[in-house]
Amino acid sequence: MCPMPPKGLPKYLPKTRLYVPDALVTGARVAATPGQARHLLKVLRLGIGDRVALFNGRNGEWTASIVEAGRDACILALEAQLRPQQPEDGPWLLFAPIKKTGVDFIAEKATELGVTRLWPVFSAHTAAERINTDRLVANAVAAAEQCRRLTVPEIAAPVHLTDLAGCWPADRALLILDERGGSPLAEVLSTLPVSNCKPPGLLVGPEGGWAPGEIGPLLKRVRGACSVTLGPRILRAETAALAGIVGWQMLAGDGSRPPTVRDPG
Amino acid sequence: MCPMPPKGLPKYLPKTRLYVPDALVTGARVAATPGQARHLLKVLRLGIGDRVALFNGRNGEWTASIVEAGRDACILALEAQLRPQQPEDGPWLLFAPIKKTGVDFIAEKATELGVTRLWPVFSAHTAAERINTDRLVANAVAAAEQCRRLTVPEIAAPVHLTDLAGCWPADRALLILDERGGSPLAEVLSTLPVSNCKPPGLLVGPEGGWAPGEIGPLLKRVRGACSVTLGPRILRAETAALAGIVGWQMLAGDGSRPPTVRDPG
Repeated sequence: MCPMPPKGLPKYLPKTRLYVPDALVTGARVAATPGQARHLLKVLRLGIGDRVALFNGRNGEWTASIVEAGRDACILALEAQLRPQQPEDGPWLLFAPIKKTGVDFIAEKATELGVTRLWPVFSAHTAAERINTDRLVANAVAAAEQCRRLTVPEIAAPVHLTDLAGCWPADRALLILDERGGSPLAEVLSTLPVSNCKPPGLLVGPEGGWAPGEIGPLLKRVRGACSVTLGPRILRAETAALAGIVGWQMLAGDGSRPPTVRDPG
Repeated sequence: MCPMPPKGLPKYLPKTRLYVPDALVTGARVAATPGQARHLLKVLRLGIGDRVALFNGRNGEWTASIVEAGRDACILALEAQLRPQQPEDGPWLLFAPIKKTGVDFIAEKATELGVTRLWPVFSAHTAAERINTDRLVANAVAAAEQCRRLTVPEIAAPVHLTDLAGCWPADRALLILDERGGSPLAEVLSTLPVSNCKPPGLLVGPEGGWAPGEIGPLLKRVRGACSVTLGPRILRAETAALAGIVGWQMLAGDGSRPPTVRDPG
């Protein structure tokens, strides 16, 4: 049972949203992290009694008001659930780490566009040797807070392309974006089995593209893997990632669903 | 009549492409701009005899070889046409200028994704007071060179939203992206007249969204104007611009066409 929002609550959701790990239940009090506290109190200049929205990926979205404010500390008291948790069932994005701002961009935009797992994949032509997963998480959290999702995409542990087939789940297709050709996305999606099948993984290569012979073994070993083209132009790696996600959302996902909530304006 | 590529030409297009204003015809010699010359000679370290590809938006794509190289100067001699000019009939993108890097991003990605006109529109909540159209052109040219288009999107003179209805052409629909709601893109596209209708204009607002009452007059005055939603999440302005373009290309444009040319690798 969820309590009704008390009188005096804003008609729309509070503009400021925070992702917190805590359980969100009636009567709970949540301590903001020092970073969140500084953002609320110093940047946004909120104070005692001001309201924000909280979500944790499990218990929906709640309003909470600031009840204690100190130096780098802020306690929020939960008021009412604004939205129950809803399934968010988008595709996975597997991407070769590219230059730092490219990864930031991919994490932000993929989160906005509904990806449920961000999975770094190291391929033969991947220039980066490592990826800052803390930074990946921070960008995904910030984007989820901004775009009014109720979840943050999972950040999977980086994997080498050669190890991907061995850990690929049987219930997801793997669509390999390939600028050298492949089947059009719409055609591929029309052939995917609908029942017992989760949204696919979209795999995008690095700036240097796929190495010769790199994709073949994956196509052979992963059932439901296929090469996909996104049209006649050569897209940058990060543009291809986005175009693949949007293409899937428009053709098979929630691209036709209306906005869940109205913006607080 | 176009000459066949001479023997010894690379199997694929040269990796380096330049947009030039000159007519591209057999026997022509083209002077690179000082900036292009520096890029070819100093950054890429090309020299006499090295080949690049040239396009001008009218005469297709040609190979040319460097025949003179000096300080900030470079003369290219045309060799053969690699591709004839082809129609590139994508949507227009009308966008409210946002922060500088946002505009750079929009110009680059929209060009990659096949937009044929970039049109800055000043609305009530647009924070920027002006837009650097030279910078817009430079970003569009660079992206067109990179993604192997044969044209560069036209950069239209900025217009105020209140003046847009008065200059909107009768043969294009105007799809207004609106986070507050509207019809799903797929639904809207299914109702557009097919004959005598060019690809639509996609209008995306600033970070602050549309002001109350700002869109209504446009919907009334422009035949074929309608509000469009892109799904349940609240997208940043630049993400919405991209998602609109990709959505159109996937549902009604060239998103299902195979790559025109293979990457030189």
